[in-house]
Amino acid sequence: MNKLTIVEIIQGHVIEGNKITVYGWVRTRRDSRAGLSFLTIYDGSCFESLQIVINNNISNYNNEVIRLTTGCSVSITGKIVKSLGKGQNYEIQASQIEVIGWVNDPNTYPIAAKKHSLEYLREVAHLRPRTNIIGAVVRIRHTLAQAIHRFMNEHGFFWVSTPLITASNTEGAGEMFRVSTLDLENLPRLNNGKINYDKDFFGKEAFLTVSGQLNGESYACAMSKIYTFGPTFRAENSNTSRHLAEFWMVEPEVAFATLTDILKLAESLLKDIFKIVLNERYDDMQFFTTVINKNIVNRLTKILNMNFIQIDYTEAINILKKYDFNFKNKIYWGMDLSSECERYLVDKYFQAPVIIQNYPKNIKAFYMRINNDNKTVASIDILMPGIGEIIGGSQREERLDYLDNRLFEMGLNKEDYWWYRDLRKYGTIPHSGFGLGLERLILYITGIQNIRDVIPFPRSSRNINF
Amino acid sequence: MNKLTIVEIIQGHVIEGNKITVYGWVRTRRDSRAGLSFLTIYDGSCFESLQIVINNNISNYNNEVIRLTTGCSVSITGKIVKSLGKGQNYEIQASQIEVIGWVNDPNTYPIAAKKHSLEYLREVAHLRPRTNIIGAVVRIRHTLAQAIHRFMNEHGFFWVSTPLITASNTEGAGEMFRVSTLDLENLPRLNNGKINYDKDFFGKEAFLTVSGQLNGESYACAMSKIYTFGPTFRAENSNTSRHLAEFWMVEPEVAFATLTDILKLAESLLKDIFKIVLNERYDDMQFFTTVINKNIVNRLTKILNMNFIQIDYTEAINILKKYDFNFKNKIYWGMDLSSECERYLVDKYFQAPVIIQNYPKNIKAFYMRINNDNKTVASIDILMPGIGEIIGGSQREERLDYLDNRLFEMGLNKEDYWWYRDLRKYGTIPHSGFGLGLERLILYITGIQNIRDVIPFPRSSRNINF
Repeated sequence: MNKLTIVEIIQGHVIEGNKITVYGWVRTRRDSRAGLSFLTIYDGSCFESLQIVINNNISNYNNEVIRLTTGCSVSITGKIVKSLGKGQNYEIQASQIEVIGWVNDPNTYPIAAKKHSLEYLREVAHLRPRTNIIGAVVRIRHTLAQAIHRFMNEHGFFWVSTPLITASNTEGAGEMFRVSTLDLENLPRLNNGKINYDKDFFGKEAFLTVSGQLNGESYACAMSKIYTFGPTFRAENSNTSRHLAEFWMVEPEVAFATLTDILKLAESLLKDIFKIVLNERYDDMQFFTTVINKNIVNRLTKILNMNFIQIDYTEAINILKKYDFNFKNKIYWGMDLSSECERYLVDKYFQAPVIIQNYPKNIKAFYMRINNDNKTVASIDILMPGIGEIIGGSQREERLDYLDNRLFEMGLNKEDYWWYRDLRKYGTIPHSGFGLGLERLILYITGIQNIRDVIPFPRSSRNINF
Repeated sequence: MNKLTIVEIIQGHVIEGNKITVYGWVRTRRDSRAGLSFLTIYDGSCFESLQIVINNNISNYNNEVIRLTTGCSVSITGKIVKSLGKGQNYEIQASQIEVIGWVNDPNTYPIAAKKHSLEYLREVAHLRPRTNIIGAVVRIRHTLAQAIHRFMNEHGFFWVSTPLITASNTEGAGEMFRVSTLDLENLPRLNNGKINYDKDFFGKEAFLTVSGQLNGESYACAMSKIYTFGPTFRAENSNTSRHLAEFWMVEPEVAFATLTDILKLAESLLKDIFKIVLNERYDDMQFFTTVINKNIVNRLTKILNMNFIQIDYTEAINILKKYDFNFKNKIYWGMDLSSECERYLVDKYFQAPVIIQNYPKNIKAFYMRINNDNKTVASIDILMPGIGEIIGGSQREERLDYLDNRLFEMGLNKEDYWWYRDLRKYGTIPHSGFGLGLERLILYITGIQNIRDVIPFPRSSRNINF
C-alpha cells in the first residue's frame, strides 16, 4: 500500500485508479441522502483539503463514519479517481476508514469548523496551526526560510550562529533580558551589599542578545561573506502589533563591501524570495488575497520589476517638511523618522519600497561609518508599503581612530569593545551588513496585520503561555 | 574588472589570461632573490589559499609589498595564469596591489603564521576563524546546516521556530537559565516576602528552553511533518568537552509515525548529510584527516554503506554484563548507560553506529510512549563511534490516560501541561521525533575533540567573553 500526502495527490504524483492510504484530520463531513458521505481531510502538506467519498456499505459507516467531526484524525485507504467537483483534480473513493483519534466532546472543540478571529486563535496557539489561515502562514514562513538559506548559500555566504547569551550590549541601548542561574530568593552579596555576579553561571552579568552583528563582523573579517539566521530579543514593554520580545532575524555581513553593495544585496534578496513565495506558495497566497488583502499578490508581482526608490535622509526630511501639516510633530533635520513619517513617504509619496540612506549620526549606533560630512553615517533603512521598516543596515566603521572617537562621543567604554576594536587593528576592511526581520517580512508578504499571528508562539509583555 | 572569490578561481570558473581583482588577507609572504615576491592570500571562500606572484617592478613594491605580513588585507589585480606549483591550478600575476589594512605591530598579532593550539585559539575566538582549522569548521558547519534544511524540505517537513523563552520545563528536570527584567538590586516582593513575579516581564517566572519538542508536537499535530532548527540551553555546570550551555539542535517531529519510522528517518538524514559533506567539503575534510584524525573520511564513507546496528536496551545490558570487568560500576537492568558503557558498545563491541531502543521508563521523560511491557518506553538513542550519543528520540505518548498516569507517577502537575494534553483530546495521533545536536555531529564528522571548537562563540560556565 502506497502512503501519500495530500500535496502529492493534488499535484498529481499519482496514478489514477491506484489504491493508496492517506493520513490526516477531518475538516468537514457532509452526508448525502443517496447514502454517501463526503469528508474533506487535511494533513498540512498544502492549502487544499482532499475530498473522500464514502459509500454507506463500508463496515464502520454507521457506528463511526457518520460520527466523525472536525479535527478527528483518520487514515483512509481507497482508490484515486478524477474529481468531478470544481477546484479539485482528484478525490479518493474510500474502501476503508480507520478513526485514529476522536474529538472529545465536539461541541467544545476550541477550533470547530467556523470562523474564528485571529485574536481568539492566539488564545489557542497550540491548536491554531490546524486552521487554514495559520497553516498557510506556517508554509509561507517555511518557504521564506528555505529561500533565504538557499539565496545566501548560492551567493557564497556561510551561515554563522552567533551567541544568544551575551555579556555585551550591541547597540549601547535597548532593553535587554537578564539571563541568570542565581537563586533570586537568596542572592549572593558582596561586602558592600551589591549582588555578587561572580557567583552567577557566567561569572558576570549576562543578557539575551539584541543582535548578532558584532559577532558576525568578526566572522565576516575572516570568511568574507557570512549571515546569521536566528532568534533575537528585546525586552520592550510596547504592546504593539509590530513588536515581539522574541523574533527571528537574518543578518548578512559582507567584507570588502560598501553601503551600495549591500543595498543591492538587500534588494536582490527580497526580490528573489518574493518570486519564490509567489511560485511555491501560490495557493496559500491566493487564500490571503481572499481573506486578508486582495492586493498582496499584485504588489509583490509589481515590485519584482521595480527599482526600489533610493533617497538620502536629508532629501526625505525636505519632502516631509513640504507636507508637515500631515504630521503630529514638527519635521526637522536630525529627528528620527516616526512610523507616521515613514508611512507617508512609502504609502503616499512614493507608493513603492524606499531605501533611506545616510541618517544623522546622533540617532544611530556607534558602529556605523561616519560620512565625510561628519554629520551623517553610512546607514540604510528599507521601508515597505503598508508595513514600514523591514531592513536596517550600515557600512561599519572600519577605521580604528574614528571608531574610538564615536565610542568616546557616546560615553561607551572602549575596553568593553576590545575584541571588536581588534578587528580594526589587524587587516581591517570596509564591510557592511544589514538585519532583516523575518516576522515583518511575513507581515508584508501575507498582508496580516499583527506580528503575533506570524510566529508560532509569540512572546511579548505578559504573554508566555504555551 | 571582474571581482572574483578564491573558490571561483580555484574551481576554474575563470578564463586563463583574464584580468581580475581578488580581495583577501595575506597568509604568507616569501621573497625570492630573483626579485619576485609570492603571497598566499585567503578569503574564507574555500580551504585553499591563492598564490600571487609579484614582480618587484610594481610601484609600491619596496614601500609596501615587502612589508606585508600575515593578516594584512589586500586587493590584488592581475592576470590569471596556470600555476606551475604543485597542488594549485591557477595563480595570479599581480599588476596592482592595494593594501587595505595593515596589521599593527605584526610581532604581537595574536594569530601570526605559526601553529596555535585549539586551547589558545579559544582565547582569541574573534580572530580564530582566520585560521585554517576554524575556517574549515565554519564551512563544514554551514554545509551541514544547508544539507539539513534541504533534506527536511525535500522530505516534506516544514521548519517551525519554537520559542526560546518559556514558562515550562520540557523534561521535568535539568538546570535552566532564568530570563527576567526584574531589577535584582530591588526585587518586588509579595506580602509574604516572596518575590512577586507578577511584576516580571512575562508576569510569571520564565526560563530559556531546553528543547522545542513539546511546542513542535503541537505543530506536527497539524502540519504532519515539522522540524525545528535553533538554539537550546542547559545551565549545567559540567565543564566537559561534550557540553555547552548554548548549542544548536534539529528536532524533527512526525505525525502518524512510529519509532521505526523515525529511526529510518534519522539514519537516512545522517547518511544524506555525510554524503553531502564528503562531496561539497572535500578539501576541508582532507585537511582534518591530516591534522586531526586520519580515519574520519574513511569512517564516514564506510557508514554510507552500512546499516546502523539496532538493539534493545535489554540486549545492550546483557552484552555489557558479560564484559562488566571493563566498567567502573556494576551493570544492571534499569541503569542509565554511562558514556563508558556506550563507548564500549560502539567503539569496541560493534564498531559501528548503534541504535539502542526501548529504555526503562524510569530513566526517561514523561512524554515517551509506554511499551506493552509497562516497564520500557519507545525511545531511541543513536550512538556514533568515537563520540557517543548524537541523537535521542522517542515515540510520544498519544493516549491521554497513559500520559496522565505518567505525569502522576513523576509527580508532575497535569494542569501545567493543559495544552499538551489537549493535543491528545482532539484528534490524537501516534507521532514520533528526535533531537540531533548540531555540535556533536560536527565533532563526529571532523574528528575534533572539544565541542568549544565547533561553535563560533562557545558558552559554558564562566565562559562568556566575546
